[in-house]
Amino acid sequence: MSKQPDPARRSERSRQAILDAARELVSEVGYAKLSIEAIAARAGVGKQTIYRWWRSKGAVVFDAFLALSQDGDSIALPDTGDIEADLKTVMRATVAEFADPQFEAPIRALNTEIISDPELAAHYREKLAGPVDEAKKARLRSAQQAGQIAADADLDLALELLYAPLFQRWLHRSGPLTPEYADALVDLALKALRPD
Amino acid sequence: MSKQPDPARRSERSRQAILDAARELVSEVGYAKLSIEAIAARAGVGKQTIYRWWRSKGAVVFDAFLALSQDGDSIALPDTGDIEADLKTVMRATVAEFADPQFEAPIRALNTEIISDPELAAHYREKLAGPVDEAKKARLRSAQQAGQIAADADLDLALELLYAPLFQRWLHRSGPLTPEYADALVDLALKALRPD
Repeated sequence: MSKQPDPARRSERSRQAILDAARELVSEVGYAKLSIEAIAARAGVGKQTIYRWWRSKGAVVFDAFLALSQDGDSIALPDTGDIEADLKTVMRATVAEFADPQFEAPIRALNTEIISDPELAAHYREKLAGPVDEAKKARLRSAQQAGQIAADADLDLALELLYAPLFQRWLHRSGPLTPEYADALVDLALKALRPD
Repeated sequence: MSKQPDPARRSERSRQAILDAARELVSEVGYAKLSIEAIAARAGVGKQTIYRWWRSKGAVVFDAFLALSQDGDSIALPDTGDIEADLKTVMRATVAEFADPQFEAPIRALNTEIISDPELAAHYREKLAGPVDEAKKARLRSAQQAGQIAADADLDLALELLYAPLFQRWLHRSGPLTPEYADALVDLALKALRPD
């Protein structure tokens, strides 16, 4: 009998190849022009293999982003006990990430889509932005307990204050994204959020 | 001799019809599917009439937005001497504007385009966002002179702190846009910006 490949391992390899292909292609051609056929061809699988696991193009692309965002380190934010230092670490990393073309292009494509597609926007919030925001809020809560942030601060608004300026500047290419910008943003947001 | 229409008035009427058509169509079909042919047909003019005044679809749509944003009142912000009251007036109006479908749809279409088109983004900043931002900064400068905002505050960052959270919440449909939200945002931003 010839040696058979382990079906579970083969399955996992196909799955990974599909996610990699989706991520590469969305950077190369944009989300709008991306097709299931092109993903299948790039991944070296049949279209039916993709439809066995995902119901739509949007679903594949989301999982590709999920895999990317969970790559390497965990979702938890650093907690050294110093909220200012920790937020500056995180915001400087975020600025660097947005300046990285490999990361930048697919996130830009994704944003173009979720702006005009409310269903995709809801899916994005539930699967991608939501869990990340929860991790960020957990860090802010620990800062509240340490008395570094006002106990009655609205943490959704606090996150917007920290991240939306950076997001808008990147999205509209309206100003430089530098480590100094990240620091200035953290300083201002913490001034707004600190206890009276 | 038959009565001839005034050519200048006819010209202005055509120009206005084209801008109205562009604004209506971008709401109905989105920017990507909008064509010069469709604008011409809706406005009741020939394609060449459009190309006489504008070099591209993007140029027509921009002028349509410019006309919209300059409709009625001037670009200057209210200045009662109380920056908190004035910003709450402006931010509540902005929230209402974003909640208005007639305004919302074309701005969403425009944002989808400027995200993926750096040249359009630059044009948008120069012609539309830039002058509006200057008017907002003039109001913040007057608050600096009144000692209500720190003299050394970075006004670009101050504007982002005020508007980006609202913009992101609207763009991602990630939370309610209410007058209370506008007020909370102004309170936080002013706390960040006030003199030490």
